Amino acid sequence: MLLTIPKSEFKERQQKFFNKLSEENCDGAIIFAVTDIFYLTGFHFHSTERPMGVLVDPDHKVHLFVPALEHTHAEEYAVIDHVHSYPEYPGIKHPMEYLKEVLQKFGFEGKTIGYDSLGYGSPMGYSGPSVDQFLEVKEFVSLKGIIEKLRFVKSANEIELIKESCRWGNLAHRLLQKYTKAGLSEIEITSKASTEATMAMIETLGPNYKPHGRTAYAIFRGQIGPESAFPHAVTQNVIMSKGDTLVTGAAADVFGYHSELERTMFVEEVSKDQEKYFNQMYEAQDVAFSAIKPGATYSSVEEKVQQYFKEEGITHLTQHHTGHNIGLLGHEAPFFDLGDHTVMEPGMVVTVEPGIYVKGLGGFRHSDTVLITENGIEMLTYYPRDLNSLIC
Amino acid sequence: MLLTIPKSEFKERQQKFFNKLSEENCDGAIIFAVTDIFYLTGFHFHSTERPMGVLVDPDHKVHLFVPALEHTHAEEYAVIDHVHSYPEYPGIKHPMEYLKEVLQKFGFEGKTIGYDSLGYGSPMGYSGPSVDQFLEVKEFVSLKGIIEKLRFVKSANEIELIKESCRWGNLAHRLLQKYTKAGLSEIEITSKASTEATMAMIETLGPNYKPHGRTAYAIFRGQIGPESAFPHAVTQNVIMSKGDTLVTGAAADVFGYHSELERTMFVEEVSKDQEKYFNQMYEAQDVAFSAIKPGATYSSVEEKVQQYFKEEGITHLTQHHTGHNIGLLGHEAPFFDLGDHTVMEPGMVVTVEPGIYVKGLGGFRHSDTVLITENGIEMLTYYPRDLNSLIC
Repeated sequence: MLLTIPKSEFKERQQKFFNKLSEENCDGAIIFAVTDIFYLTGFHFHSTERPMGVLVDPDHKVHLFVPALEHTHAEEYAVIDHVHSYPEYPGIKHPMEYLKEVLQKFGFEGKTIGYDSLGYGSPMGYSGPSVDQFLEVKEFVSLKGIIEKLRFVKSANEIELIKESCRWGNLAHRLLQKYTKAGLSEIEITSKASTEATMAMIETLGPNYKPHGRTAYAIFRGQIGPESAFPHAVTQNVIMSKGDTLVTGAAADVFGYHSELERTMFVEEVSKDQEKYFNQMYEAQDVAFSAIKPGATYSSVEEKVQQYFKEEGITHLTQHHTGHNIGLLGHEAPFFDLGDHTVMEPGMVVTVEPGIYVKGLGGFRHSDTVLITENGIEMLTYYPRDLNSLIC
Repeated sequence: MLLTIPKSEFKERQQKFFNKLSEENCDGAIIFAVTDIFYLTGFHFHSTERPMGVLVDPDHKVHLFVPALEHTHAEEYAVIDHVHSYPEYPGIKHPMEYLKEVLQKFGFEGKTIGYDSLGYGSPMGYSGPSVDQFLEVKEFVSLKGIIEKLRFVKSANEIELIKESCRWGNLAHRLLQKYTKAGLSEIEITSKASTEATMAMIETLGPNYKPHGRTAYAIFRGQIGPESAFPHAVTQNVIMSKGDTLVTGAAADVFGYHSELERTMFVEEVSKDQEKYFNQMYEAQDVAFSAIKPGATYSSVEEKVQQYFKEEGITHLTQHHTGHNIGLLGHEAPFFDLGDHTVMEPGMVVTVEPGIYVKGLGGFRHSDTVLITENGIEMLTYYPRDLNSLIC
């Protein structure tokens, strides 16, 4: 049972990144993005006001730059060649002064240096100079999007972890549906379902299971009754009523990897109107499934879904595109969007979630996580999609 | 029972921000930071690849710029004058083209415009031009840190919400301690305690309670036994053993506001060594409590704590400074740090959490949330701190 990415795969990722650096004529690189630090080194940490970064020096050694309180943690868990640390932020001597010394010592000066961001950024009270203010180089080259693109196609191991996430999301969702009842609060139902699924998950997977985020969970995010018409609503602690339209969400973090399972459900009974919109949403999702295939563009999927909505005369009830890649982040590029002409490739993992939103009635959206294969798709989520299975 | 910030207070915050804009000679402003958008407008949303921002025009009208899927949500919940939206990201026409039109229509061109960031940033697949690439202004003026500083001193309402957070964190922690037992997994204990505390919380507060983050919770974050020596460890799904040192954390989100309660606990028995380090940590926290008073600097608190550690000969066992402000974020500036000379004022809310970390044995850290008053401090967290109360 695979519950982590093996060290060898982090090494392979680093090699791919070195190759990209060569293509960009960069001698070294400075990376501050949290997700990309994990992707390259396997180092999972709480991002705060204290700067952290990955440095690739001109000899292609990989360095982690961290605060003192992460030093032993980094040495123990990260797939890297060197760890450097500074005492504290802001400190008497600013962390960027320590960074400068490391960059000088390992030969970054006078070289062509790639970067994702010229300075560390955090909303948690951080401020400090950008790298170009304290380091003399030949040239700084933006690498924006380069590691993101390396993350587009998932490895066999990554797909296994996403499947593991789907499995426990499915259980949490099953329990959510079982416990949903008129008169109960959304938080009561989601707490009970999530805790029970989490317990089954940890008893099954054992202590090798390391969550980086939420263990198995199933939620409503306030999308209950008329509030479900807000596609990205937030938890409202609503009490369920008979006839409510519900939009759910369920998954589990597995070593940093995510999946997405969302269902439109109904409390006890379904009106004609609810059934009509449910069927249109269901059909739109089928349109998308059929359109997903390697070699076609992401935009072509969105075009077909929008064409379907247009034929049904419900374009005015839609508010967002059909889906996005998923992996280390819940939303990743590319997007099933009219403006995204990226070509689909086998190994990409996407969400498929066209939605219809009717003011006063509710939202209608399923989301499934799907693997793009050589021929079309493999469904990774496997919860029932049909109306009869989704009445609580 | 106060569970939200009233609309009038958001208006007051906006007026204070307008005054700052005048001081900086700015005619208007563009703000992208999620926390500051909430602080100014009360609009709570899921931050994604889709850009959002607050615009203050030269007539001091406040605008929210959002994707279509947040339009009605923003109209219903945000304290603002206008909502503008774009269809989708990336879209056929990029969101920044829509933003440009709004900025032109509302008179931003040719003016002096304050900003927190010149472009929207998100790790979730966003890319786009910065504002200075598409808007002709007289001058762009960085407002970095200005709203953050407005957030330093908490209002009476904010303090009430933080106290409410402390209350439910206390219950979750009590249950965590009750359920902690050798042989159980950290996730089992934390799930049980958190769910039970959450149920009590929502039954008590009722549907007016709107969590923006986690409802009542108590956790270990993997700080169990020798792993507790990593000050910012991550969940490890560890099984408890007799004699383990534990470092906990407990709180609840109340309308976006946070508190921090952490305790060092022991499973069943305490060794002489554990007791010694516990007592030194306890004493260091007392040193900090005594040093906190309005008019003194944040750095002076850290100096006194470090002096104490030095006298005890355990400076090498420390890895971080003594604490930080807390409110809408779990960590906020200023910091109890040698390099932070901000002067303490009544109404600031801080965490006090000096720590000692002993490799192979464990971590020793309490954290309490404390209000700075006219005379000294008021403890907002109220869980027992003494050793005898903390053996499970």
